[in-house]
Order: sequence, then C-alpha cells, then structure tokens
Amino acid sequence: MEQLQRLPGVGPKSAQRLALHILKRPESEVEALAQALIEAKKQIGLCSVCFHLSAEAVCEICRNPNRENQTICVVVDSRDVIALEKTREFKGKYHVLGGVISPMDGIGPEQLNIQALVRRVSQQQPQEVILAISPSVEGETTTLYVGQLLKPFTKVTRIAFGLPVGGDLEYADEVTLARALEGRRELD
Amino acid sequence: MEQLQRLPGVGPKSAQRLALHILKRPESEVEALAQALIEAKKQIGLCSVCFHLSAEAVCEICRNPNRENQTICVVVDSRDVIALEKTREFKGKYHVLGGVISPMDGIGPEQLNIQALVRRVSQQQPQEVILAISPSVEGETTTLYVGQLLKPFTKVTRIAFGLPVGGDLEYADEVTLARALEGRRELD
Repeated sequence: MEQLQRLPGVGPKSAQRLALHILKRPESEVEALAQALIEAKKQIGLCSVCFHLSAEAVCEICRNPNRENQTICVVVDSRDVIALEKTREFKGKYHVLGGVISPMDGIGPEQLNIQALVRRVSQQQPQEVILAISPSVEGETTTLYVGQLLKPFTKVTRIAFGLPVGGDLEYADEVTLARALEGRRELD
Repeated sequence: MEQLQRLPGVGPKSAQRLALHILKRPESEVEALAQALIEAKKQIGLCSVCFHLSAEAVCEICRNPNRENQTICVVVDSRDVIALEKTREFKGKYHVLGGVISPMDGIGPEQLNIQALVRRVSQQQPQEVILAISPSVEGETTTLYVGQLLKPFTKVTRIAFGLPVGGDLEYADEVTLARALEGRRELD
C-alpha cells in the first residue's frame, strides 16, 4: 500500500483497494503485472531526436518517412504528442521540451530540451516551428523564451487560444473570451 | 409548486423547497418578490436598435456616447452581451440575434433579428462586424448565413476558437485541438 500510494491519483483508500485486489488474484497474474512494469521501465526511453517516449533510439514518428520534415511542433510533454496525434491533423514532427520554465520550482531553460531544439532547428532549417504550449504563466514564459531563440532560424507560430469547440460564450471565462475577441479572424 | 416548476432548473423537489420557504416568510416579503417579478416583466423590453434587454426604448450600451460605432459584435443572446461586457475588452456596440438558425426546431432566419441587423449595417456602414457565436452546428450555420448577408457592406470577422486559457492540451477535445492548430498565428 505504501508503494502504491506514490502513484499519481492514488490515495490511501485506492491504495488499499488495489492492494486487496492484488492479494485476491492468482500469483501468475501478479507476476505478469510486475514484469510489465519492469520491462516498460527498462525498454522505454526518450527519442534522441525529439525526446518523445520511444522503445528505440529514434521514435516511430521521427522514423516515419510519410511525415514531413518542414514543420516541428514543440510541446511540453509526451502526453501532448499523444493528444495531438489523436486529432490526425498534424503531419510534421514533434519536439518534447520535458517541462516548462518555472524558476519557483527550480526549472530553468537548461533543465529542458531547449538547447537540443535550437540545435535541431538551426541544422534542419524547417519552414515552421509551431509552439503548442498551454497558456499558463510558466507556459507563456516558455513560449516567449523558445520563440526568441528560434526566430533567427525559422518562422515561429503558436496555436490559437479562444472558445473551445462546443463551448458556450456564456460559460467561457473572461480571459478566454478576451483572447477569442482579440484573436478574431476574417470570415472566408 | 406547479407554477414554480415551470422555471428553468427547478424540478419537483426544488419547487417544494421554494414553496415551503415562501410559506414561512412574512407576507410583505412575498409581496415584494411578486411585485418585483411583475415590474421586471412590465419594464424590461428589448432595445429597438440592438435587441439587448433594456428598460428604455434604446439600451444603455447603444445610448453610451463613449462607445464607438465602428464595430458591431453579433451575439445569440443577451447573456452573451453580459459575458462579453465582463471582459471589458470590447468598446463597440452589440446586436442580439435572439437565437440560432435551427430548422429542426422550426427556427428560420425570419424568426431572428437578422433582417434588422442587415438594415442596421447597410445604413450605419460600420468598419467591422464581429460574429461571436458558439461553434455548434446551428451556430456555424448562423455564422455563415449572417456572414454572407453582411459581406457586401463591411468587413466580417469571427472570434477565435482554440485552447481555452488555463486549459491543458491534454484535456482539450480533438476538435478544439485541431482548431487550435489550424488557427495558429505568428509569434510577434
């Protein structure tokens, strides 16, 4: 239970429930779970190009010849890659920063995969780098910092902020509404 | 209780609770509430210019000389005017459509304040009309329909759709993420 409680979203009650569940299962099943955890940890590392989770030195997306090299989408986390892949809209490559700049938590640019990104962009010279970073205070800092570093090499864009699709004007917070107004575009 | 149950969000249980509460209050208080309802209904009508709720023939926003006349923001409902006013970002005038085009519910363009809008825009010739309509199926239909009618007279824009501020990439639905990617803008 102590070990299980260290997992995210598992409190004392869930830990007890999980532990009791495990005690009821046959030994072979428990061993399979334990083995899967060890194997995953052993085999999955970071892609040496984009820092996305990968079982190989270079990840599937970076190796895929059908994906274009002219656009790199910069995200904070591997979870963001997975979320963007689900949209099936983006056909370029990714770069995972591994976090956001947060001096309060002792995270400076050197703790993130920013230097590798600048090197990659200066060498590959893609046509566009899209910054897809959530607009928190730390996210904005990171967007501006990375943007300044990349501008000498390529066109730098950022994703749109505004009303979520299916969202109602009335339920949107004021900052989102202000951004939606500010970011308005001409109707085609 | 029967009467109270007709209010939005009031079910049988709430109606009973409200009714019993009212029976416990002094008569003067109950009369004040009843009177307020009658007065509100009697005094509040629609602004003859923009169709926002108003106690006067022309609403406060339309009468305010400090608001500029060059931008008209088109919304579905008076609630949207209130939501946009809270942002303090918009300094122009409004036009309330009173609903969205929805053939399923028997609502065509003629049931909405669209004709009045086209007349208003063709006469006043504002520099810009911003369509601030939620992106539901009916909302999109309404946006495109109104946009086509107004384009001969003025520049027509629509508010931005994308990631809500404070929202996390990971938690955004796929359509919103796709819109956020599609609507990306160059970093200044």
